[in-house]
Amino acid sequence: MASTGLWLVGARGGISTTVIAGLAALKSGRKKPTGLITETTLFDGCDLPPLEDLVVGGHEIRTGTLLESAQAINSDSGSIRSELIEAIRADLEAADERIRPGILINAGEAILSLEGVDQDCRHDHPAEAVAQVEKDLRTFIEDNRLESLVVAILSSTEASIAEHPAHSKGIDLLSAMNSGEVEAFRSSTIYAIAAANVGAGFINFTPSPAALLPATCELLEAGGSPYAGSDGKTGETLVKSALAPMFAQRALKVLSWQGYNMLGDRDGEILAHEENRQTKLSSKGELIEHILGEDVHNQVSIDYVPSLGDNKTAWDLIHFEGFLDHRMTMQFTWQGCDAILAAPLVLDLARLLAAAGKRGESGLQKHCAIFFKSPHRCRIHDLASQYRALADYARRNSSTTS
Amino acid sequence: MASTGLWLVGARGGISTTVIAGLAALKSGRKKPTGLITETTLFDGCDLPPLEDLVVGGHEIRTGTLLESAQAINSDSGSIRSELIEAIRADLEAADERIRPGILINAGEAILSLEGVDQDCRHDHPAEAVAQVEKDLRTFIEDNRLESLVVAILSSTEASIAEHPAHSKGIDLLSAMNSGEVEAFRSSTIYAIAAANVGAGFINFTPSPAALLPATCELLEAGGSPYAGSDGKTGETLVKSALAPMFAQRALKVLSWQGYNMLGDRDGEILAHEENRQTKLSSKGELIEHILGEDVHNQVSIDYVPSLGDNKTAWDLIHFEGFLDHRMTMQFTWQGCDAILAAPLVLDLARLLAAAGKRGESGLQKHCAIFFKSPHRCRIHDLASQYRALADYARRNSSTTS
Amino acid sequence: MASTGLWLVGARGGISTTVIAGLAALKSGRKKPTGLITETTLFDGCDLPPLEDLVVGGHEIRTGTLLESAQAINSDSGSIRSELIEAIRADLEAADERIRPGILINAGEAILSLEGVDQDCRHDHPAEAVAQVEKDLRTFIEDNRLESLVVAILSSTEASIAEHPAHSKGIDLLSAMNSGEVEAFRSSTIYAIAAANVGAGFINFTPSPAALLPATCELLEAGGSPYAGSDGKTGETLVKSALAPMFAQRALKVLSWQGYNMLGDRDGEILAHEENRQTKLSSKGELIEHILGEDVHNQVSIDYVPSLGDNKTAWDLIHFEGFLDHRMTMQFTWQGCDAILAAPLVLDLARLLAAAGKRGESGLQKHCAIFFKSPHRCRIHDLASQYRALADYARRNSSTTS
Amino acid sequence: MASTGLWLVGARGGISTTVIAGLAALKSGRKKPTGLITETTLFDGCDLPPLEDLVVGGHEIRTGTLLESAQAINSDSGSIRSELIEAIRADLEAADERIRPGILINAGEAILSLEGVDQDCRHDHPAEAVAQVEKDLRTFIEDNRLESLVVAILSSTEASIAEHPAHSKGIDLLSAMNSGEVEAFRSSTIYAIAAANVGAGFINFTPSPAALLPATCELLEAGGSPYAGSDGKTGETLVKSALAPMFAQRALKVLSWQGYNMLGDRDGEILAHEENRQTKLSSKGELIEHILGEDVHNQVSIDYVPSLGDNKTAWDLIHFEGFLDHRMTMQFTWQGCDAILAAPLVLDLARLLAAAGKRGESGLQKHCAIFFKSPHRCRIHDLASQYRALADYARRNSSTTS
Repeated sequence: MASTGLWLVGARGGISTTVIAGLAALKSGRKKPTGLITETTLFDGCDLPPLEDLVVGGHEIRTGTLLESAQAINSDSGSIRSELIEAIRADLEAADERIRPGILINAGEAILSLEGVDQDCRHDHPAEAVAQVEKDLRTFIEDNRLESLVVAILSSTEASIAEHPAHSKGIDLLSAMNSGEVEAFRSSTIYAIAAANVGAGFINFTPSPAALLPATCELLEAGGSPYAGSDGKTGETLVKSALAPMFAQRALKVLSWQGYNMLGDRDGEILAHEENRQTKLSSKGELIEHILGEDVHNQVSIDYVPSLGDNKTAWDLIHFEGFLDHRMTMQFTWQGCDAILAAPLVLDLARLLAAAGKRGESGLQKHCAIFFKSPHRCRIHDLASQYRALADYARRNSSTTS
Repeated sequence: MASTGLWLVGARGGISTTVIAGLAALKSGRKKPTGLITETTLFDGCDLPPLEDLVVGGHEIRTGTLLESAQAINSDSGSIRSELIEAIRADLEAADERIRPGILINAGEAILSLEGVDQDCRHDHPAEAVAQVEKDLRTFIEDNRLESLVVAILSSTEASIAEHPAHSKGIDLLSAMNSGEVEAFRSSTIYAIAAANVGAGFINFTPSPAALLPATCELLEAGGSPYAGSDGKTGETLVKSALAPMFAQRALKVLSWQGYNMLGDRDGEILAHEENRQTKLSSKGELIEHILGEDVHNQVSIDYVPSLGDNKTAWDLIHFEGFLDHRMTMQFTWQGCDAILAAPLVLDLARLLAAAGKRGESGLQKHCAIFFKSPHRCRIHDLASQYRALADYARRNSSTTS
Repeated sequence: MASTGLWLVGARGGISTTVIAGLAALKSGRKKPTGLITETTLFDGCDLPPLEDLVVGGHEIRTGTLLESAQAINSDSGSIRSELIEAIRADLEAADERIRPGILINAGEAILSLEGVDQDCRHDHPAEAVAQVEKDLRTFIEDNRLESLVVAILSSTEASIAEHPAHSKGIDLLSAMNSGEVEAFRSSTIYAIAAANVGAGFINFTPSPAALLPATCELLEAGGSPYAGSDGKTGETLVKSALAPMFAQRALKVLSWQGYNMLGDRDGEILAHEENRQTKLSSKGELIEHILGEDVHNQVSIDYVPSLGDNKTAWDLIHFEGFLDHRMTMQFTWQGCDAILAAPLVLDLARLLAAAGKRGESGLQKHCAIFFKSPHRCRIHDLASQYRALADYARRNSSTTS
Repeated sequence: MASTGLWLVGARGGISTTVIAGLAALKSGRKKPTGLITETTLFDGCDLPPLEDLVVGGHEIRTGTLLESAQAINSDSGSIRSELIEAIRADLEAADERIRPGILINAGEAILSLEGVDQDCRHDHPAEAVAQVEKDLRTFIEDNRLESLVVAILSSTEASIAEHPAHSKGIDLLSAMNSGEVEAFRSSTIYAIAAANVGAGFINFTPSPAALLPATCELLEAGGSPYAGSDGKTGETLVKSALAPMFAQRALKVLSWQGYNMLGDRDGEILAHEENRQTKLSSKGELIEHILGEDVHNQVSIDYVPSLGDNKTAWDLIHFEGFLDHRMTMQFTWQGCDAILAAPLVLDLARLLAAAGKRGESGLQKHCAIFFKSPHRCRIHDLASQYRALADYARRNSSTTS
């Protein structure tokens, strides 16, 4: 049976552990596929790889086991319960065997100072780093006789990267790689190049801007890799993308949109670092401007609140003006478990990109905008339009409609 | 200059007063048309009657003047400020001249016991009531040399009406009217028949179910009247129609959707009556079922909180399940001034129906679903789809695209 | 070693199971005594029975085991985790041995129709019911060589009971008991009489009004039983008792206080019955009137939302007027697990009543008002004053201050 | 008739304008004294100066009139309505006559760059600045034949001031004043010295730390001036002081308390400056630590949201742990108009300090802690204890209890 590989970068982090545990729970019939768009009727008749054919491996830069990660999640948000962990213990152990030490290059203080980082993962030369990742991917393909492969970046948000002349063209980036110009790369850049080299699909599920540079996108396209990004749309931004169009469609004038995000967890710890938070904030902020225009007083903030763990809480205040300039308000509170919201999107994207790859579709998967806070090269942020684009794509690729 | 007439039933109520005051403010350039969809670029090139050509008249069953209504609104919600009232005092007085005593038939205790109801408005015979309304409408047309006319029901929510054999066919309803079968009618039924008789457009902006019966719809269509309803979508339901699709589009399973509505005002006073509240509640509840299915524990309640006045407050709790059956919550608070949100929709609808009438389009205006909580004979409740339908209609009727 | 007995009526319900599991967790050092007021410095030097000397038994009218209850709580709110259940399994089994079939008399449809009710628990004659309860209590005392005993009513909220001439005096109630006038009793009345007969302390932790009738209070006092009630203050009402005084102390005029409570669980199921809900609502409503006066538009509602389980959610809107009659609002959302909030209060009350009993203090324990929504014969509802009363009591009874 | 003077520093700002307009409305019987604690029964029998005997004057550093300020407030928050402004126009004009140009010394960029600042108010020499203020105060006393005077600082929050050797002792501060050591002073320091010099009561209603230095407090006490501060407790902090004790009194462990404050207005504009915001934040933060201990993750933030004007909005999230370490949450939203909440407190304080002065009580008025976010030299932050202290003081000074 031909298998589809899913390679997770940050393979024992919260989202990855939830992907792996969830896939085991789905395969064994213990859980229903709630949250998976690709399991809805929208994709009836589309030739997506079945969930049972997915094989997961990955890279990780911290020590520990998947079992420990799952137990930590149980203590934190309770989203993976003890009973489930016991039932899928063997699956977790088997997946652990497919996880290799990741690479760290030009990684920045926030990430390097995380507890449990394996300092052996640090690399000084981009070409060597690419070579190692590429080797691991090829071994994964061979060992599991994979028909196709998708690489997903699920690691911590990186700081932004200074502009570099090599970022514009693939050939310049490869040349900078070979000459060891380490400042042109972050870890996510390395993974994108390696994915292009092996022709794997590539998902930037983080806001890290060094992943989808013009140069890496060119290499991915040339390598036959479908790709999509950036930054999974899982919570507050998801709500905004459903709600902001309402004000526009009613000709109501939004004066101010204040968004406050609180989270704990390793994710929150990283975002407590100013550099890394800035990457995230600019990813979160652009939606309001695109949907409601530049006049809105639009602020997003993120605070690290350790006790919340992965139970992200967001509170938004929307102050708006209606007829006769009368002012009114709306506010919402979102309390969502981030990994639980993100994991099914990763599985959806993996199936969509694997299927696209098999059909020979490389390059940017524009219909995947719905999955991202900052859809790559796309100004459409409203959820309904994004959903329609995905539905149109599904219909076009459905055997039942042909 | 050809004028368009807008006849408001409940002409000194909160919404009508805001429509009249707002129109005066817009005509004089004192305010911008915030909240008016027909003033957005969506309708560029569409031949809608200009706002300055609208003439407003109406029926009212209570005593008092528009000036008093405007002052009461100023005291209550502050949405029509003293300064504006002073500036448009002459317009209010002029509009007052065009308001006639309305009719009350089979009206129910809640409405009859309102303070200030003019008991002379009560009618016992439906044919006489229709004749009076028709006469008032024809006088309004002649006095103002109107090219077209739209009647909008903005009066208090009526109790539901018991099924009656005359409700199915126009001919049977007319026969019941002539034979004085008063129990087959409520006041809103009378207005619908009169609108049909004069070929006026007809808007049921309330949930009152006696307005758009199969029989009245048949008469309206036969009379060349475009019509639309029911129940203006202004607050909590508007938000739900933007937000509920998000859960469906993300394959998240909504377990419970609790909606609590609080309002004061005459509107709230009427809805404190069980019979009238039931009419409203069934209008508000159907959306969740249509968008999210029947499994959702879906409750809407309305409470009369006098101190809030027209500043309607709604709080909704959404309890939902994601991947691995993990449960999460979202909640929102909406604080909106109802008349401020409703008035521009009434102006939008009046313009759309007047233009349709001129083009000879009679019958149900399906593209107007976006304006209503319970769009008539329409199962599409999600805001984005409704907006698309309206946009398509605008494009089809735009001279610039032809 | 002299032991103190705690007899729980409704011994396998959510609160009781949490009391039993929590006590086992505390005794074994697995958990800290968070939520227990009697473990704070306030009670330093007071001669309260140590937690390790508490022995728990009880009555239950439904079938099942404590282990099953604990597992159901784990599935529902996750408040008793699998790991803890495994660790204290032997304690749960041992406690199960001390639980006897309870009694049901004049119990009402809501309770009788609960799933799993053991119909053998139904009694027709109050004297026989009292005799059975008394026998079980005496056996519990003997088997465990208890020095003192406290009975706590933790069963479902009963409907109110019609006034009956026997409710005023102890002697009349005993006579009605002997002559089998079943309509003068509900189950909670039986327990109160039995507690009086054995000289046990008595806690009405529910709002059930048939427990603390003038007649039962007289019997308890005569029997040397300290008692306290009614209706544990655990969530929305707790917040109100802290917040409402603020408005009074600032001379701000509260216009409206709307409180919406949502809960699932057996508790919610019972309260979905109109009769039983009324009992609860009148218990919850009186606070605002006592603290802020009768002018406030004060509404409390309770809705059954099954998916919430024991995670009670309350949303309150407070609309108030300040200087120059300007209106402002405050709102709060409380999301609390009811059993988790209630269980430590039960332990606190048990210790306080046991100690009072040993000191020969019988009758109403007024300083316990802080624990209740409707403190018995007490008009002090504000939390700070209640806390002060408890602190004064603790100081008076502390050996270190004498 | 002996009059009491109230001298407002920042006399045309939002709070001052509301004090002046409100006092006129109260004197004329147009409004009730909602929000005034000194008008409740708590102060029955206390010899406080009647409201009608209060005369208001003040200093202001910006140009404009009280009428313009009142109109701006009407446009912004609507808290002073047009109708009222018209009715009290003469009072506003009369008060305007009693307002003198204020002083600015070492004032900082945020304040100096405010629109409309009169640059003539800038002073370089502290002794001259004190002399001018003192002269204005003496003139005010003489012109109005005042029996007593209270000076209240209601101007914008100043940045903190660097420690200076002259801050510890009165004599050193006077010497620094005479030798022109401008860096030891901010404008509020000048006002405190002048108040001491004329024996006036002194209220620091802002958080500005340069007002109540050890040296100024010593001078005030020596001058026979009663004083109180700092930073009026009007909104989010007021709620916290009522709510935080609840968690302590229930032995619930607060893990995190996140507070987000949004405001527009000149106040918000000033607080958008980092230096000035820091002054405010440290004033707001200390309460949680004092009531709940140092372990709480306690964050307060303030954001400038212009559209909100003076309608301050705060949202707080409280994450806490109960029995069995179970985690729960509470959240609240406060929407209050700041000047409306502050103005009655200023009147209360003025009356209390004037009465104290007449009785010869100088120095810190500890019983006034309830009015402040950072009660001076006082660790009691919980509202109930503060209220009790005020009530005890009222009782001691009531003629009816003597």
